[in-house]
Amino acid sequence: MKASIITIGDEILIGQIVDTNSGFIAKALDKIGIEVAEMRSISDNKQHILDTFSELQDDSDLVIVTGGLGPTKDDVTRNTFCEYFGDSLVSNAKVLEHVTKLIHNYTGNTNPLLQSNIDQALVPSKATVLFNQYGTAPGIWMKKGNTVFISLPGVPYEMKGLMEHEVIPRIVSEYRRPYIIHKTVMTYGMGESMIADRIADWENSLPAFIKLAYLPSPGRVRLRLSARGSDKNELESAIAENIKSLSGLISDVIVGFEEEETIEKMLGKWLTDKKLTVATAESCTGGKIAQTLTSVPGASAYFCGSVVAYQEAIKTDVLQVPTETINRFSVVSNEVAEAMALGVKRIMKTDYAIATTGNAGPGKDNTDKDVGTVCIALALPDGSVISNEFKFGQPREKVIDRAVNKSLEMLQKEILKFVE
Amino acid sequence: MKASIITIGDEILIGQIVDTNSGFIAKALDKIGIEVAEMRSISDNKQHILDTFSELQDDSDLVIVTGGLGPTKDDVTRNTFCEYFGDSLVSNAKVLEHVTKLIHNYTGNTNPLLQSNIDQALVPSKATVLFNQYGTAPGIWMKKGNTVFISLPGVPYEMKGLMEHEVIPRIVSEYRRPYIIHKTVMTYGMGESMIADRIADWENSLPAFIKLAYLPSPGRVRLRLSARGSDKNELESAIAENIKSLSGLISDVIVGFEEEETIEKMLGKWLTDKKLTVATAESCTGGKIAQTLTSVPGASAYFCGSVVAYQEAIKTDVLQVPTETINRFSVVSNEVAEAMALGVKRIMKTDYAIATTGNAGPGKDNTDKDVGTVCIALALPDGSVISNEFKFGQPREKVIDRAVNKSLEMLQKEILKFVE
Repeated sequence: MKASIITIGDEILIGQIVDTNSGFIAKALDKIGIEVAEMRSISDNKQHILDTFSELQDDSDLVIVTGGLGPTKDDVTRNTFCEYFGDSLVSNAKVLEHVTKLIHNYTGNTNPLLQSNIDQALVPSKATVLFNQYGTAPGIWMKKGNTVFISLPGVPYEMKGLMEHEVIPRIVSEYRRPYIIHKTVMTYGMGESMIADRIADWENSLPAFIKLAYLPSPGRVRLRLSARGSDKNELESAIAENIKSLSGLISDVIVGFEEEETIEKMLGKWLTDKKLTVATAESCTGGKIAQTLTSVPGASAYFCGSVVAYQEAIKTDVLQVPTETINRFSVVSNEVAEAMALGVKRIMKTDYAIATTGNAGPGKDNTDKDVGTVCIALALPDGSVISNEFKFGQPREKVIDRAVNKSLEMLQKEILKFVE
Repeated sequence: MKASIITIGDEILIGQIVDTNSGFIAKALDKIGIEVAEMRSISDNKQHILDTFSELQDDSDLVIVTGGLGPTKDDVTRNTFCEYFGDSLVSNAKVLEHVTKLIHNYTGNTNPLLQSNIDQALVPSKATVLFNQYGTAPGIWMKKGNTVFISLPGVPYEMKGLMEHEVIPRIVSEYRRPYIIHKTVMTYGMGESMIADRIADWENSLPAFIKLAYLPSPGRVRLRLSARGSDKNELESAIAENIKSLSGLISDVIVGFEEEETIEKMLGKWLTDKKLTVATAESCTGGKIAQTLTSVPGASAYFCGSVVAYQEAIKTDVLQVPTETINRFSVVSNEVAEAMALGVKRIMKTDYAIATTGNAGPGKDNTDKDVGTVCIALALPDGSVISNEFKFGQPREKVIDRAVNKSLEMLQKEILKFVE
């Protein structure tokens, strides 16, 4: 079963916003065994949309469209659906009631609705309406030939709600699909080509129904195995077998296995299980380690807090890094990072503490270190502290991202020791 | 002049990574007056790539392709270019020298290169090679008919470097392009449909060469005007005139005008100009306000630091929020937010301080407030503090994002008063 995803909106084509909807939809479809053959982003232009519908219909069982459903003039999807399906718009009573309730709640009064709000309840007469609990524009499900066309709002939270509550359950109940299993091996400390060289023979002997992909990102490479077929047990045992033989070849650089889990989620599970806590003291990462850790629901069980010590005075006054240490070793030094980690660990009474100090660039600021230099320290439950200086290059955003990743990896490595 | 952007990689089609490259490229092209007609993400499959090239060639003067240039087996772009252009690969001496240097730097030794690294210097014989200073895979520039095909690596930092240093300068010197001017009006506090209703007559009277787009995001709506034509002066005065008449209609909800600036950049400029400083005390936002402020280079001039007080003990011990205040008003209350703001302002000796406390969900945790409730306080230079309770709904990520946006808007509003 094949799907295509279309995103409608000029704001994407001029680069004003990044399309994150297609990725979310693709992941949700992949999970239920549907292959996404193509994604397209096109303009708010009726003819362009109609042409794209025709082009994709032949090769797709499913075409999911996001965007262009708002109440304003630049939103043309609904009318385009009518034209493509030879249909016309009718007002849906249930949607109108929901829109009225939402608007009255939002404005705090019960004034008559604007015409543009009333029009949000218009749907093609032949469409199956998908109820949008988080917003005013409903989803639409229509079939032409063997292809189902689905229209969803472009607002990410609304689109996600509709995918989860309406689209996926409906597909699962109406279509038979093959199994897809992914397994990802996370490695760090070795380049993509070095890994490829080491596992060349293994890679060449993979069965045809298993695909391998290399996914490099700052400081690490993920290897993703994907198996597709009709026999779930066969796929699972083939994946397990190949993961085992792969692990034997690169055990020195493997840090974990995940389906789709992030390092912060894995850390969260371990820390919660072991009832251990962590805090951060951040300079160049500016709170991004804290923010990454707290992106996981339930993080308050193990994440106590952070001191973002962006200016030198905060390092000395709040974290009590001795001025002498800064003067002697420079503000970007392992010694300062260690003092920051121990400082925040003491203040927040945690088991672990991560600290960063560095220069993310673009300027050299008041440090004597090269742009891209970051020192990371990790304070451990036994009172000791370890640290390392890294050269993360440039530009600024890469330096910050690599520092965040490396910090979490250092913590992961220590916790793995503790677990073993 | 029309462009299309193609992203190659199965990892995008299964939703494992979000394609941010296309947005970056689109923005860079838009700036120099090139319209992006379409973006496509397709698989690592040679035939699929060849078909897409043929389909896009007719309508595009420029086709920019990212991805599939790595050293591993799943990278097929280079060979596909050869097939499409009837060309063959040759080793480029300058690229090989650069690759050798990069690998030797990375490994810290001068061992002979792996074959896969040596192969990174292979390029189609007829291609113009675009030098990649940040990585091993060079960019490629080839022409078929009137269409230029450009291949860039998928690693964002490498792609960005090549766009900036090679692709854009080359296009600017070789092609005449029309002017595109965008101007964005930022509003907050009024819904999309309410604004549309208020400005309907104005919108209907816009000249044909000016397009209006509504860009809603949590808590705010941006209105983008885009003018396209050959006479720069005419476009500029038409935009200025229409912005002026628009401003008269919605002056009560306009918070700023930007070309492409973020609120954190604007705050940065103002704070730097006025030599004012800010700190944050964050609970439910987990450091994301600090991280947003420090995403701007030079933020250390005005951002002192943050205390992320995720657990209650940090609020009382570090920020010195009285336990009595928490017990009396609940940990999610304006009173606690105010005490947090005043606490961090005192500790970090700043002019302004932002504080957040709330429940981002999905669970109710140990608070008595609904999921999505966030209290935000802002401590001001005169020693006073203001606060507000918000209902940001769900899910978790939306609550956090809206709290970050709202916090920065509250600061912006106060600073605007100060400026006036």
